[in-house]
Amino acid sequence: VSNWTKKMVEQLDREDALASYRDRFSLPDGLIYLDGNSLGVLPRTTAARLDDVIKREWGSDLIRSWNSNDWIRMPQKLGDMIAPLIGADAGEVIVADSTSVNLFKLVAAAKAMRPGRDIILSEEGNFPTDLYVLQGIADMLGEFARYKTVPADQILKAVNSNTAVVSLTHVNYRSGSFHHMQQLTRGIQEKGALVVWDLSHTAGAMPIDLGACNADFAVGCGYKYLNGGPGAPAYLYVAKRHQEQVKPPLSGWMGHKNPFAFDDDYEPASGIDRNLCGTPAILALAALEEGLKTFDGVDLDALRAKSMKLGDLFLDLVERELEIYGIAIACPRRAIERGSQVSLTNPQGYAIMQALIDHGVIGDFRAPDVMRFGFTPLYTRYMDVWNAVQIMMEIMNKDVWKSRRYQIAKAVT
Amino acid sequence: VSNWTKKMVEQLDREDALASYRDRFSLPDGLIYLDGNSLGVLPRTTAARLDDVIKREWGSDLIRSWNSNDWIRMPQKLGDMIAPLIGADAGEVIVADSTSVNLFKLVAAAKAMRPGRDIILSEEGNFPTDLYVLQGIADMLGEFARYKTVPADQILKAVNSNTAVVSLTHVNYRSGSFHHMQQLTRGIQEKGALVVWDLSHTAGAMPIDLGACNADFAVGCGYKYLNGGPGAPAYLYVAKRHQEQVKPPLSGWMGHKNPFAFDDDYEPASGIDRNLCGTPAILALAALEEGLKTFDGVDLDALRAKSMKLGDLFLDLVERELEIYGIAIACPRRAIERGSQVSLTNPQGYAIMQALIDHGVIGDFRAPDVMRFGFTPLYTRYMDVWNAVQIMMEIMNKDVWKSRRYQIAKAVT
Repeated sequence: VSNWTKKMVEQLDREDALASYRDRFSLPDGLIYLDGNSLGVLPRTTAARLDDVIKREWGSDLIRSWNSNDWIRMPQKLGDMIAPLIGADAGEVIVADSTSVNLFKLVAAAKAMRPGRDIILSEEGNFPTDLYVLQGIADMLGEFARYKTVPADQILKAVNSNTAVVSLTHVNYRSGSFHHMQQLTRGIQEKGALVVWDLSHTAGAMPIDLGACNADFAVGCGYKYLNGGPGAPAYLYVAKRHQEQVKPPLSGWMGHKNPFAFDDDYEPASGIDRNLCGTPAILALAALEEGLKTFDGVDLDALRAKSMKLGDLFLDLVERELEIYGIAIACPRRAIERGSQVSLTNPQGYAIMQALIDHGVIGDFRAPDVMRFGFTPLYTRYMDVWNAVQIMMEIMNKDVWKSRRYQIAKAVT
Repeated sequence: VSNWTKKMVEQLDREDALASYRDRFSLPDGLIYLDGNSLGVLPRTTAARLDDVIKREWGSDLIRSWNSNDWIRMPQKLGDMIAPLIGADAGEVIVADSTSVNLFKLVAAAKAMRPGRDIILSEEGNFPTDLYVLQGIADMLGEFARYKTVPADQILKAVNSNTAVVSLTHVNYRSGSFHHMQQLTRGIQEKGALVVWDLSHTAGAMPIDLGACNADFAVGCGYKYLNGGPGAPAYLYVAKRHQEQVKPPLSGWMGHKNPFAFDDDYEPASGIDRNLCGTPAILALAALEEGLKTFDGVDLDALRAKSMKLGDLFLDLVERELEIYGIAIACPRRAIERGSQVSLTNPQGYAIMQALIDHGVIGDFRAPDVMRFGFTPLYTRYMDVWNAVQIMMEIMNKDVWKSRRYQIAKAVT
């Protein structure tokens, strides 16, 4: 049993080399926000930036802003800001659409690059939208494709000469555990298939090196650890070596070689640009840019180290203080096997989480019984973790969660 | 030749029953903006609304806003605001993604509803992204589908028992002419095919009645006449009678029957909701909502009447003052055959437009030689038209467009 005291935890905050980054965010007073894995908090600069984009760029410069304020290159510019967070090179990442739409583009395109193979493989319990998108692709392709899922530990075994593409999420949204990206990528590629990684719960929370992993494709979310705002645009990655082969079926005009020639015939742009589809959402892109700026100068290894330490502290305290109430750990106990979230279970998890939220500790709930707590090292303090557990102890000790109001509310991500 | 005088045109503005709506917008002083068909101007309320959404809803309420500020229902709510502009019923329109992505969803879904038919038909010179998206669908479907285009006046003749779906744009982006929606829809349906209408250059500029036309499907853009801001979310329409049959291949979690059950298997929501894909872009939706509010209480017939009158005035003056410089009319001369834009041609159209923009008259250019001028009756004044033509006369008379700077700039929408 751990011997953490409040004094020791306060000391951790005092020694935290990342502590000053918290000033880059606008956080509500008195709230302990452990849900940056679902919606990142508001960067301090976002409101002013949007005000400027709206009043000056849109309001005054109007249509001219596509050139004068370089709206037209924002998808590429933001992609290049994301690239160092995921070990990609400049020109390998572009921001567009939603994670779901981007996954559709790349899985369908990858499938077309393996015409003799029909299986689109994923894992059971992958994030639902990923599985739904794969099902949509397979349905659309009819006899050309089969959709299949296997348990996480049987992926490599399930890949064979019929497998066209494997779609995997790096960090699992429910358990917080993650795949060994390099090993799995190599294993899948050795059998002739391609891999599309979903980095939604990875980028901005732990460093990853797509280049070193020889990754093929990836997608990810802008509104979680990247702090881009609710429903922020997503991104996608295509390794340089695939960029002239990949042909996303969502071939909109912004992916055309020369969008303003207004040709009737589609001709894909070279490089990453062909993965764009419709007109980019400028206001949303501007907000995402401010989110990405919060990573300026951040040492990603220090970020990862703090993330692991925050999670360990939380689980140490859970073991010592909360297991007695039937709250169990549902994520890897070892930090090196976890992303930047921890998961707890209890049959009353939903009501407990509602009570927690009402008492100023924001995590979230995933059916049927998982309570998630995300750690965002740029703004989460060690004392936030300490205080969250104190409040949870009180809620469990006094049976606060039994209140009818916490039993009946409706869940939303 | 028309006998318009400045006095007469000023009188039109004084008698304009829609004149007061101009106060709903924030327009730069001294600019004559005739490009609302490409990017609508900034509504007065948008900046304050976004500031509130950013600081209070996102910054303070954070993840709770999905419920407490009803973020989760914004796509439906905004769809219901668009419905009366296009003759749809509540529950038939939803806001999501881009026009291109929505077209992909509905054309692919419509094609799947006609499995024995393989042709996806459109018209030559349709807006490029529409054609590119159809090509992408056909490529993905391989032997199951053929993409075909015919000239606008041969569409009905080209529909036969192999035609699955016809994708048409109501108002042509280049010429401003429009199809007879009711007649074409009926003719296509009589041959057993489905129609997807693109209303990007229609909604908000002229009334249309999808219900009375017995339309099947439609898509449209949020950033033109709807004033939703650069790259605003788009919308789509599915007639009630098709809603339980349509299965968009972009089956993301927001289109699931129960997104927060986190099931592995996709089951489409009933009604219009299944046409959502990823997480909705809240900041962009909030901006679009302010754009849609500018139509509160607007009489759409009066809007159309003013739009026609603005266009007629412009063309009358072009005939009288500008044809002498080799500027020709490239849109229907009769207002009842035009949308809310006029198009002029000249081999030097690009340079002329650059000079115009530089002299405070914003229209746009479409390759190879088309100058477009859009009329947005909520904020365009008759005197804007008069002044625009005066400035154009000066530019032509003094050969201003010959300046090297107007010859070399780069075109962007």
